[in-house]
Amino acid sequence: MKLAFRISTAMVAFALLASPAMAAEKVRWKLAMSWSSTLTPFANAPLNMAKAVEEMSGGNFTIRIEGAEKHKAALGILDMTKGGQYEMGHSASYYWKGKDISTVFFCTVPFGMNADEQNAWFYHGGGMDLMQKTYEKFNVLSFPGGNTGAQMGGWFQKEIKSVDDLKGLKMRIPGLAGEVFAKLGVNVTNIPPGELYTALDRGTIDALEWVGPGMDIKMGFHKIAPYYYTGWHEPATELQFLVNKEAYEKLPQEYKTMLITAMKAATADMFIENFADSLDAWEQMKTEFPNIKVMTFPKEVLQEMKKASDGLMAEYAAQDPTFKEVLESQQAYTKKARVWTEISEYEYIKIMQEL
Amino acid sequence: MKLAFRISTAMVAFALLASPAMAAEKVRWKLAMSWSSTLTPFANAPLNMAKAVEEMSGGNFTIRIEGAEKHKAALGILDMTKGGQYEMGHSASYYWKGKDISTVFFCTVPFGMNADEQNAWFYHGGGMDLMQKTYEKFNVLSFPGGNTGAQMGGWFQKEIKSVDDLKGLKMRIPGLAGEVFAKLGVNVTNIPPGELYTALDRGTIDALEWVGPGMDIKMGFHKIAPYYYTGWHEPATELQFLVNKEAYEKLPQEYKTMLITAMKAATADMFIENFADSLDAWEQMKTEFPNIKVMTFPKEVLQEMKKASDGLMAEYAAQDPTFKEVLESQQAYTKKARVWTEISEYEYIKIMQEL
Repeated sequence: MKLAFRISTAMVAFALLASPAMAAEKVRWKLAMSWSSTLTPFANAPLNMAKAVEEMSGGNFTIRIEGAEKHKAALGILDMTKGGQYEMGHSASYYWKGKDISTVFFCTVPFGMNADEQNAWFYHGGGMDLMQKTYEKFNVLSFPGGNTGAQMGGWFQKEIKSVDDLKGLKMRIPGLAGEVFAKLGVNVTNIPPGELYTALDRGTIDALEWVGPGMDIKMGFHKIAPYYYTGWHEPATELQFLVNKEAYEKLPQEYKTMLITAMKAATADMFIENFADSLDAWEQMKTEFPNIKVMTFPKEVLQEMKKASDGLMAEYAAQDPTFKEVLESQQAYTKKARVWTEISEYEYIKIMQEL
Repeated sequence: MKLAFRISTAMVAFALLASPAMAAEKVRWKLAMSWSSTLTPFANAPLNMAKAVEEMSGGNFTIRIEGAEKHKAALGILDMTKGGQYEMGHSASYYWKGKDISTVFFCTVPFGMNADEQNAWFYHGGGMDLMQKTYEKFNVLSFPGGNTGAQMGGWFQKEIKSVDDLKGLKMRIPGLAGEVFAKLGVNVTNIPPGELYTALDRGTIDALEWVGPGMDIKMGFHKIAPYYYTGWHEPATELQFLVNKEAYEKLPQEYKTMLITAMKAATADMFIENFADSLDAWEQMKTEFPNIKVMTFPKEVLQEMKKASDGLMAEYAAQDPTFKEVLESQQAYTKKARVWTEISEYEYIKIMQEL
């Protein structure tokens, strides 16, 4: 007894000395994604984040990732995180435009910022505050969750030479970009991802927009459509981590910082992975299907799209003061950011292209 | 006594149950920077990294950051990390070109990759392996430490209209870019940062290269030189975290992952901060000094620079097989990456510029 007592006193003393402020609380969280567990690189953002959190906490803070194939609610992520069935979600902010139109700005908008500009706006231009303000009513916190960079404008069976060529065109394109195309006479439809290839192949649709080479290649669109248009509609699609606010506030400070840090690292990694996937996939597509033509919409068409987009944004701004506030914040920031983009990153590529 | 015994047993049981694998080891590290503690955003990368590590470990793993104003050895960081006086360093890989010429590739090289391409190369194109191979002999690990993006080509008192205008020009420009300019007849000098403003003002030098608007504005060059040239020489200057290998290997797995994750998050944050600082500073410069002219070197001059740069790279490659290996890896990767950059990020800015 005496020995046991001495040992246990020593152990207590050791345990207290060795970890005075170390959180060793067991926390078991779940995260629901809008995508299947195999949809890389999107799924890798939460998977890498959870892996880092688990390792950093010595296995005490774990986050189980569930893909849409399991929970069957790809577009229910915000509700499920709000309700607490899942402490976290991984999705895209523009999926919630039916609940609050201002959510689109924290993903991407037609003719908006590129990824560098958007990151600068989030962290140094007031964007994070505006995002939290928008998401406050949902009882969740929202964080950047990985950016795709500039998406491609989509696969087309026919060349678009004028606005007239868009009239009656059947196209799968979601979100605000779909609304812009609809204003120009496009017959915009939504078709589940699993049916897209067949729809394009059989002529149920004439065109579709997906992401970029890295993700498009797995869908096989390059085998059946010859025109690959450059983008204007999603210049920097930022995915999103959602965190239930009460669950977050209950975390010890150590775990809060682990979560924030791991989300940021995983977000940066996903952008890099998507960029790397795209350049590899593009090389492969061009090698296997050398007839693919990269096209940019004619200036006249882009001008009409821009006009339609500006009109749409003005309509929403007139209806919703928060939308107006975020729109004006983004527009003002883009104006000064773009001047810098043009003389730095853009000018360098231009110099190299012309050498 | 009996009460005390029972309490301590319970506490031991709790401590053991609650933190079975949690590292609570006290680790006290020091990091030496090549810059002063106030040189933002560079200094913020290690400062933010250390803050995250300390918070995540509940204060058990701390890294004290020392600026060059304290250790007085701005260019001794690699030696001090190798020797273990400091467990970590924050510097720029091209500072070590005198020790090993291949180190330049892990920072930036003239006419090289932009930041997105370089990140993709590091993590998906074999760059990290080549970096570790290069640094192995120094007994250190090297990690990306924050990128400045495309740097500006520098401040000039006179317009450069031809290669002839470069002959005899006195310019402060370090590194490989300095060697390229020297080949074109420039009188390349190195002057300590604190004396640069006066040297440019008094005509001791005719031109100088620094970073970009965010950092240049604090030096005041825009007040005394009218021409601000766009860049070609440092398209994606990546700073560097150095870690003493033995110190790293002694860390518990939890702390290793904290370090890796916090470095990655801080690296992403520094790029964003530098971008945001630059767009703000550029707006301010242009407002206060509307006569500043942004210039791009004439095509003929750029072509001569490229020829000189290619020649220089070929000379080093002939002398050093590792240099040749890394050069060829970067060239092959850049070739396929640039095609993607051109049809995605670059094309989008071009579209917007022409609308």
